[in-house]
Amino acid sequence: MFITVERAENGVRMIDQRVLPTREEYVTLRTPEEVADAIREMVVRGAPAIGISAAYGLALGATQAVGTDTATFDARMETLFHTMAAARPTAVNLFWAIEAMRAELRAARSDGLDDAATADRLERRARTIHDDDLASCKEIGRLGAELIPDTASILTHCNAGGLATAGYGTALGVVRSAVEAGKNIRVIADETRPFLQGARLTAWELMEDAIETILITDNMAGALMRRGEIDLVVVGSDRIAANGDVANKIGTYSVAVLAKEHGLPFYVAAPLTTVDLACPDGDGIPIEERDRSEVTSMFGTPVAPPGVGVMNPAFDVTPAKYVTAIVTDRGVARPPYGTSLRALFDRPAPG
Amino acid sequence: MFITVERAENGVRMIDQRVLPTREEYVTLRTPEEVADAIREMVVRGAPAIGISAAYGLALGATQAVGTDTATFDARMETLFHTMAAARPTAVNLFWAIEAMRAELRAARSDGLDDAATADRLERRARTIHDDDLASCKEIGRLGAELIPDTASILTHCNAGGLATAGYGTALGVVRSAVEAGKNIRVIADETRPFLQGARLTAWELMEDAIETILITDNMAGALMRRGEIDLVVVGSDRIAANGDVANKIGTYSVAVLAKEHGLPFYVAAPLTTVDLACPDGDGIPIEERDRSEVTSMFGTPVAPPGVGVMNPAFDVTPAKYVTAIVTDRGVARPPYGTSLRALFDRPAPG
Repeated sequence: MFITVERAENGVRMIDQRVLPTREEYVTLRTPEEVADAIREMVVRGAPAIGISAAYGLALGATQAVGTDTATFDARMETLFHTMAAARPTAVNLFWAIEAMRAELRAARSDGLDDAATADRLERRARTIHDDDLASCKEIGRLGAELIPDTASILTHCNAGGLATAGYGTALGVVRSAVEAGKNIRVIADETRPFLQGARLTAWELMEDAIETILITDNMAGALMRRGEIDLVVVGSDRIAANGDVANKIGTYSVAVLAKEHGLPFYVAAPLTTVDLACPDGDGIPIEERDRSEVTSMFGTPVAPPGVGVMNPAFDVTPAKYVTAIVTDRGVARPPYGTSLRALFDRPAPG
Repeated sequence: MFITVERAENGVRMIDQRVLPTREEYVTLRTPEEVADAIREMVVRGAPAIGISAAYGLALGATQAVGTDTATFDARMETLFHTMAAARPTAVNLFWAIEAMRAELRAARSDGLDDAATADRLERRARTIHDDDLASCKEIGRLGAELIPDTASILTHCNAGGLATAGYGTALGVVRSAVEAGKNIRVIADETRPFLQGARLTAWELMEDAIETILITDNMAGALMRRGEIDLVVVGSDRIAANGDVANKIGTYSVAVLAKEHGLPFYVAAPLTTVDLACPDGDGIPIEERDRSEVTSMFGTPVAPPGVGVMNPAFDVTPAKYVTAIVTDRGVARPPYGTSLRALFDRPAPG
């Protein structure tokens, strides 16, 4: 079994998601800045996994700052909070994890702890974020599996799997849990251009678990729905607005429209930490625009004429009206999401 | 300016569409079987261009068969009609061109022509198919341009351009004609996985003509429609059923559903020879399933784990209800297509 990310001796260790499935390689990042770079360059990706990685990066930075003085330590942490927050803009889990670490720092200081004890607290907080994510994914899986028929062909887009989380997955957590419950599940995986998370990551981790997987190009989903090959859709999310608008990997919106046109359920699976009540609707979610080279070349081979115009939004927003249900670790929200999502915040976290 | 396909000294010469845009290379095929292979392997692709290539291949076969005897000549041609027809299943233009050549052979024989004169007639018929296609595309362009606003951002899928035809294009013929009419046009080109005709061919030929082109991955079209970046869609077709159902490159159906959802016109541009009145509806159109390697690797680099399941339908069918108008070389058909398409067959061909 792979390890998405872990706190290693003097560093943060993660599987390099850029070279999967051809090579299963791990990198160890020795500074928080290297962790931020790894997030930016998508060595690690997936909203919960980014949050965990950032937390570990900050814990690493705290431990490395012990031995200076408290003012230097706190200034260093403040710098690191900003560095980490600048890595990628869309996934709210990154900012949530940074805020959790910042709150922990504040609490440690108000408890009068010294730098070493404070670093210890930050290390433990990061570990808790990691552990909580695994518990969240298991609960999302359990709740989501109840929505899945005994036999189902499930379309997913991008990778909301173990590689995007602490190890079990959100959308793929639902798949795994349905399989564990004895259901007869086939996954149809959109390849998910330009980064090919579906082909490279989702297909790989599902095959590791011996779950039947059919890989398609993104533009085939509609035709397969029309042919009756798909029963429902489950995807993850990078940020969910208070009204239930869902930001997720580019192409998710198209899948949602197609699902609606074919009368298929469209489920979003994400921990409640993905819900950003500060965003009233999807218009408030910043959408990262990534480099043109992701579209114009593949593995260094140009696939388009030099100088062609390119748009490369990494995410899109699916309006709430296309979303059948949002499966969180604290319950399943149904429309209208403005009230149902908010109500989930009053429930206890799992685990 | 590139040459999609031409009858060369002792062969059929065509630009190798597999290596564009990195290399602009021409290949000369020395036998009709080589031409059939080139169609199968997508050295040449695009419904009208396939038809022209097949006709030239058959003319080449006829000329090479002169000097045997009439029975051998005719048997050879019959074999070649079958060889050519087996190259690819979906584009009706291939079968239309083969039937046109077969009818010409019959006519030559019933006129009492000898083999040399018969081969000459077949050569001239192939040339006419080529010339007629150029005239058809110009007329499609002229009629289609009238549907385009003075300023428009046009989404197209795959390549229905000069490279798919005798040189002007069907969908891109509409674009070219609109630009020639002084309209302010921007094309958004779906890259069109797995073969990347949009990235490699459409972007290339539009840039050769200095037409503004934005390349996107297929899964971005919906998000860009939602952002107001696209005003209308124009695509080509490989076969149109009598009721107006449209077979075209995989992904076209998804684009059509998205266009409907956003209230955008979805136009199909194709010569009337693409309309197959023998197919009552899209269910009668055979959909080619191509090799899994097109999806699982890119330029020889694996992008998916070995052994993953794959679906690779090369085309899909867009039901007539999604099609705003079908622009042919004999007029623009509007719903209901059952009557409007049939009526166009009574009009004279252009040119």
